[in-house]
Amino acid sequence: MKIALMMEFSQAAKNPIVLNELQAVAAEQDHTVFNVGMDGDNDHRLTYIHLGICASLLINSQAVDFVVAGCGTGQGAMMSLNAHPGVYCGYCIDPADAYLFAQINNGNALALPFAKGFGWGAELNVRYAFEKAFTGVKGQGYPPERKESQVANAGILAEVKAAVAKDNYLDTLKAIDPELVKTAVTGERFQACFFEHCQVEEIAEYVRGVLAA
Amino acid sequence: MKIALMMEFSQAAKNPIVLNELQAVAAEQDHTVFNVGMDGDNDHRLTYIHLGICASLLINSQAVDFVVAGCGTGQGAMMSLNAHPGVYCGYCIDPADAYLFAQINNGNALALPFAKGFGWGAELNVRYAFEKAFTGVKGQGYPPERKESQVANAGILAEVKAAVAKDNYLDTLKAIDPELVKTAVTGERFQACFFEHCQVEEIAEYVRGVLAA
Amino acid sequence: MKIALMMEFSQAAKNPIVLNELQAVAAEQDHTVFNVGMDGDNDHRLTYIHLGICASLLINSQAVDFVVAGCGTGQGAMMSLNAHPGVYCGYCIDPADAYLFAQINNGNALALPFAKGFGWGAELNVRYAFEKAFTGVKGQGYPPERKESQVANAGILAEVKAAVAKDNYLDTLKAIDPELVKTAVTGERFQACFFEHCQVEEIAEYVRGVLAA
Amino acid sequence: MKIALMMEFSQAAKNPIVLNELQAVAAEQDHTVFNVGMDGDNDHRLTYIHLGICASLLINSQAVDFVVAGCGTGQGAMMSLNAHPGVYCGYCIDPADAYLFAQINNGNALALPFAKGFGWGAELNVRYAFEKAFTGVKGQGYPPERKESQVANAGILAEVKAAVAKDNYLDTLKAIDPELVKTAVTGERFQACFFEHCQVEEIAEYVRGVLAA
Repeated sequence: MKIALMMEFSQAAKNPIVLNELQAVAAEQDHTVFNVGMDGDNDHRLTYIHLGICASLLINSQAVDFVVAGCGTGQGAMMSLNAHPGVYCGYCIDPADAYLFAQINNGNALALPFAKGFGWGAELNVRYAFEKAFTGVKGQGYPPERKESQVANAGILAEVKAAVAKDNYLDTLKAIDPELVKTAVTGERFQACFFEHCQVEEIAEYVRGVLAA
Repeated sequence: MKIALMMEFSQAAKNPIVLNELQAVAAEQDHTVFNVGMDGDNDHRLTYIHLGICASLLINSQAVDFVVAGCGTGQGAMMSLNAHPGVYCGYCIDPADAYLFAQINNGNALALPFAKGFGWGAELNVRYAFEKAFTGVKGQGYPPERKESQVANAGILAEVKAAVAKDNYLDTLKAIDPELVKTAVTGERFQACFFEHCQVEEIAEYVRGVLAA
Repeated sequence: MKIALMMEFSQAAKNPIVLNELQAVAAEQDHTVFNVGMDGDNDHRLTYIHLGICASLLINSQAVDFVVAGCGTGQGAMMSLNAHPGVYCGYCIDPADAYLFAQINNGNALALPFAKGFGWGAELNVRYAFEKAFTGVKGQGYPPERKESQVANAGILAEVKAAVAKDNYLDTLKAIDPELVKTAVTGERFQACFFEHCQVEEIAEYVRGVLAA
Repeated sequence: MKIALMMEFSQAAKNPIVLNELQAVAAEQDHTVFNVGMDGDNDHRLTYIHLGICASLLINSQAVDFVVAGCGTGQGAMMSLNAHPGVYCGYCIDPADAYLFAQINNGNALALPFAKGFGWGAELNVRYAFEKAFTGVKGQGYPPERKESQVANAGILAEVKAAVAKDNYLDTLKAIDPELVKTAVTGERFQACFFEHCQVEEIAEYVRGVLAA
């Protein structure tokens, strides 16, 4: 699985801590981690709004399979990611959240609070949450006997999100203030991940156009 | 403020508990509560998918000012509500979440876990969260000196959600499986709240059409 | 390591759930579990007061190495266990608590809330906490560079507890209402664990006396 | 009610934050707060071991009615305070903990984690917990119909603690390493609170002796 970590300006200083835990867990499971947001010394400032756009591009182009995002409380990132079609972002403060979300909702993103409740020893909680989010088979339902209805509801949510959004995916991005999109895709590490792994040429072309504008 | 409480089938049995706490807090602040979801004995089965549609209708028609929703973990309700334009749904497990969301994000909905972590004494936590969610002036930022940028980001999120969604609000609903919408609006208590307080005639007409179909 | 699980009357119905998780984790680490409290159908009623006495006997006789106890909120069990010499009982609501307590405080007991916050899926949280409590080497400090002072403080706490208590261990039990002690040691499963593994003949003799009285 | 706040060296820098919240809540309820531990610039270093001794002296001499203590995870402070006769210390991470402990256990101390989980906005959680700990009548049971058995158990715990400890209170202190006691009572703010409000002349005399030694 390809996992993107994306952090905004307000918690950029904690990026090395979170990245370290995510990489440690991912390595055990042969997942690959891409650190595509701020890492403390970026020259462009990402807010949770930009994280939503980054996640939308990476998920909808199948450049990555999963996104870990967050902000101070995690609420902004969570709402911002869920605003986009194809992105299903849970909110996770403990390992059981991570496990239940993986089994019941089987989404493709998690938003974490990187400031609220993130005190001493928070790296432990983050690691344990990643362990439960990224180990084993997802979407098995919890408890297993409720799998069928849980999977069904996840599928209906996908239909509702598709119905609410503009019919053409790129139109959802084109309707957004171009400055926001440009800032979202300016990062070198974001571009390295996106352009190398994007599976939808049309989206790659669009991003190239944004960068050239 | 008009507050709608909506609970799905899986936690319907807890509706009296949650309603009681919400009403107690609302009464102190002169808010009005509408219990528009399941209350244990409904003849139609609402899932978190339906709650999203209910919230979309009530918020976008200005029938209510705020929605309290939830499901087992709260994650399904949170994603389902956030799928709709105009709905900004936080995830709340403690009173500080409720306060910070009110001040920083100033959204119009909260999703709560009504099964996970909802053990003995959970009514206390719910009440305390409501106290902090529904007391005082919202949108003041936290800490206050960051109000300006927090309000700005909330505004940008609104623009992004509007951009992503279909241009005409009713088109977002019309694109959804009509059976889902019909089930969502079938409840007597939902209809009482919606038709009495709906401020957008076009939406009321649409719902009447759904019910007549 | 020998681990005793002890639950009081108020949460006895949950004993099979907690026992199952504890046994699953213990099996992976070659620990042995003794279920010495109530399991739902005991004919004598144990409160958190009795759990403290049970823990005191098992720990001070080295019959077991570790005790997992609890009550509704866990607070009564925590205070009751800590009232006894030689028992160092932490309070644990999440996996990071369990890990930090094992590394920093290196105590020999944990009290858990088995009602408050113990909602749907609570078995996951309990299992994850046990994973972190019972895996790996304890007492290594956290972070490791603070090990020395953390170990020193744990040692000083032991001295203080010994100083506060009556000089002779058995005198601490003999000063307690004999009815309480008798109820605490009446259980068949408690006796099986205690008499088979007790390393201090004087304490075994005392318990035999209590039972004969 | 007279409430003492005591913080150890590791979290001394956060004393102004916690004190501010405690004073704000206490003022609304006409409680008086004494800040008797470290405040960041003390010349003597208090650990959670010393906090236990401070609490023991203040509570057993009736100099104060309640103690708020803590350390990094709160576990050391919690065990250290509970080691002493007459001190009943709960562990509190959220407002519901504070309320339930006040109603069910009716203890006279709370230990809080001042590092673990103490992230951005933690002052809110601390304030809300204090609100629930220090407002209204304590010891009413929760739910109220279980008051009788809950009060009975609290009384039995008091008997057990008294039984386990040395018969004479001062003997519990005299058996402790005198250096520990001396460090515990050296602080100017501790002494101001203790000597002005101590209701047991014998204990005051003992402390004077320790200071003179």
